Amino acid sequence: MLVHIRRTFANARVVRHLSTFARSEFGKKAKPWRWVMTGVAGTSLTMVALYSGMRPRGVLAATLLDNKDWMSSPITDPKEMEKNPDLMRIKMEMMIMDIQRVFCRALEAEEDGKKFQVDKWSRKEGGGGITCVLQDGRVFEKAGVNISVVTGNLPQQAVQQMKSRGKTLSGKNLPFFATGISSVIHPRNPNVPTVHFNYRYFEVTDEEGKKHWWFGGGTDLTPYYLDDADVEHFHKTLKQACDKHSTSYYPDFKKWCDSYFLIPHRGETRGVGGIFFDDLEDGDQEDLFKFVSDCAAAVTPSYLPLVKKNKDKAYGYKDRRWQLLRRGRYVEFNLIYDRGTKFGLNTPGARYESILMSLPLNASWEYCHKPEPGSEEARLTEVLQNPRDWV
Amino acid sequence: MLVHIRRTFANARVVRHLSTFARSEFGKKAKPWRWVMTGVAGTSLTMVALYSGMRPRGVLAATLLDNKDWMSSPITDPKEMEKNPDLMRIKMEMMIMDIQRVFCRALEAEEDGKKFQVDKWSRKEGGGGITCVLQDGRVFEKAGVNISVVTGNLPQQAVQQMKSRGKTLSGKNLPFFATGISSVIHPRNPNVPTVHFNYRYFEVTDEEGKKHWWFGGGTDLTPYYLDDADVEHFHKTLKQACDKHSTSYYPDFKKWCDSYFLIPHRGETRGVGGIFFDDLEDGDQEDLFKFVSDCAAAVTPSYLPLVKKNKDKAYGYKDRRWQLLRRGRYVEFNLIYDRGTKFGLNTPGARYESILMSLPLNASWEYCHKPEPGSEEARLTEVLQNPRDWV
Repeated sequence: MLVHIRRTFANARVVRHLSTFARSEFGKKAKPWRWVMTGVAGTSLTMVALYSGMRPRGVLAATLLDNKDWMSSPITDPKEMEKNPDLMRIKMEMMIMDIQRVFCRALEAEEDGKKFQVDKWSRKEGGGGITCVLQDGRVFEKAGVNISVVTGNLPQQAVQQMKSRGKTLSGKNLPFFATGISSVIHPRNPNVPTVHFNYRYFEVTDEEGKKHWWFGGGTDLTPYYLDDADVEHFHKTLKQACDKHSTSYYPDFKKWCDSYFLIPHRGETRGVGGIFFDDLEDGDQEDLFKFVSDCAAAVTPSYLPLVKKNKDKAYGYKDRRWQLLRRGRYVEFNLIYDRGTKFGLNTPGARYESILMSLPLNASWEYCHKPEPGSEEARLTEVLQNPRDWV
Repeated sequence: MLVHIRRTFANARVVRHLSTFARSEFGKKAKPWRWVMTGVAGTSLTMVALYSGMRPRGVLAATLLDNKDWMSSPITDPKEMEKNPDLMRIKMEMMIMDIQRVFCRALEAEEDGKKFQVDKWSRKEGGGGITCVLQDGRVFEKAGVNISVVTGNLPQQAVQQMKSRGKTLSGKNLPFFATGISSVIHPRNPNVPTVHFNYRYFEVTDEEGKKHWWFGGGTDLTPYYLDDADVEHFHKTLKQACDKHSTSYYPDFKKWCDSYFLIPHRGETRGVGGIFFDDLEDGDQEDLFKFVSDCAAAVTPSYLPLVKKNKDKAYGYKDRRWQLLRRGRYVEFNLIYDRGTKFGLNTPGARYESILMSLPLNASWEYCHKPEPGSEEARLTEVLQNPRDWV
């Protein structure tokens, strides 16, 4: 069994407090197999303890499933979750529900009272999702945080999509399960970068009945004006999460990120990268899950300081115009090249509003726009054309 | 030989005048095989006479190749053009040069002095183009009229693209020739619709040395607010051009247009249609060329009255916001589904600025936007979901 226990504490002794609490619930031998810091707001710190392999008392199970903190009730039927607590798909759903809550609440805390609109939706072919959007805020022009838990059969187009990623699966219409969290935040101030992250888990059963599973994900940053210290902080935070699991992860996945987010026709990347990985299927499933969970938990601490630092900086018409042009490039990447968007739009019964929430509120295209030589705009462009190491 | 003769006359006796002029140049038996009205401005009328099958005098050939009216000198070397005057690729190039000129000048006449920026470009793999863009004008927010004449070898991706259109061509890297005119006009006033047209001619030689050729094209309208009379005028003008060649063309190509410009994930068309056709290869090449030329010549008379009528109408913030949202849908179609854009971006050495000039200066995406029931916005949406017959 896996349970989440949430408490907000006023100081860093939180681990000790929570351990005491867990022992009182599970008995003296209880040890969490993982502690994840999921949020920092002011002086308070939110921690999540994941316990596996033990049955919780009824009261804890109830707390889990009626959790008032989550943005909505889970997609999967609570009874189903109780019956199969050790299934990876259930563990993933709980993890992404939690990440969604922590990230959305952290963003709301930066706004002047504006809250996320929460839409829970279901898909007639199976599954559904929870889409949270905060639009036209003072700080965030458009912020979307979506989770989905989708089951059904994979159509031919989507099988193709998978095959192009090196997956060779026999059969034309395969039972599949996909769950993930996906988010794009477009702030209003051009000094605050856009951030995107996506963590996902897939299962497909081939026609011989063999079940294939894999994880994918990544977090990447798209600044409009380069603040080297900000980009370094962002990359460093992701690297720390990676290094806990393998020191080869960050360098490999940083490189993968730069090549994935390339806009080939322009010969430039969408932003200054981060990490990106796909088809993670070799090794222990539990270890990979922990890695993915740590990456997801690193989003808030990697990004939030950049919002706090830059959200109230002064900017002018030139800056806004440049931001809108860069947002046009963002749209180009997402609609022409992004595999997630293609996979989403090709999935029958997909909720296109949730897929396209990644698009900015406003974007521009100017014919043959060129940044002035020596300008800040030119400096960014140069980095996008020649990705740099930041750590 | 094919020659263009241009004169501006103050009245409708233009045909008689031009015939007299042609006879003086070609001799008494000279008869133009086609007269095309290519422009109307004030009381003057511009006509183009196409003469085929005869050698012009030197003075006319010189006039043709040094034509000062065209937006630029032709892409193909004038000597090459003189040597092969009856080649379809040469005739197409001359036709689209002329359409570009007439359309651009007609649009400029609606502006307050702002003119098209003309960029002649070449492609190192072979060929080039002339891109004309008028951006940020009082009447036109972004207007692009591009012609291209491109030769080279067709890469694997582009062959696939063609095969998906029903072309089965053997070989992996095939010599090809493509020429065409493509244009998108995004006016500033939401009461003026956006128009798009594209007329093109392809040649591909398969690995057995067999040359395949075909024509494609279309003209379609994207209003932000429906003015039934405007849409009827637009469709009627296109129908007249079609009916001269076959009465089945308009109904067939109107249907094709509605299905081509569908945005599947939204279940709505990009606009109120027009005509669209592809793979036109059965029948006499000359007849098909005449048909395509007539369609191209119908663009200005189909669209310009809509600009004149609506360009100075009052509008408000609500109208502008709706226009920007609809432009977001335009971007979605062009970047996700449009085969021309895909073909362009997949062609090595393609000039992406010319391909992406179709994108609006500004576009918006609002999460879950729904027009108010009973509003003009809802009336348009209903028509986009259920294409209507307009003639």
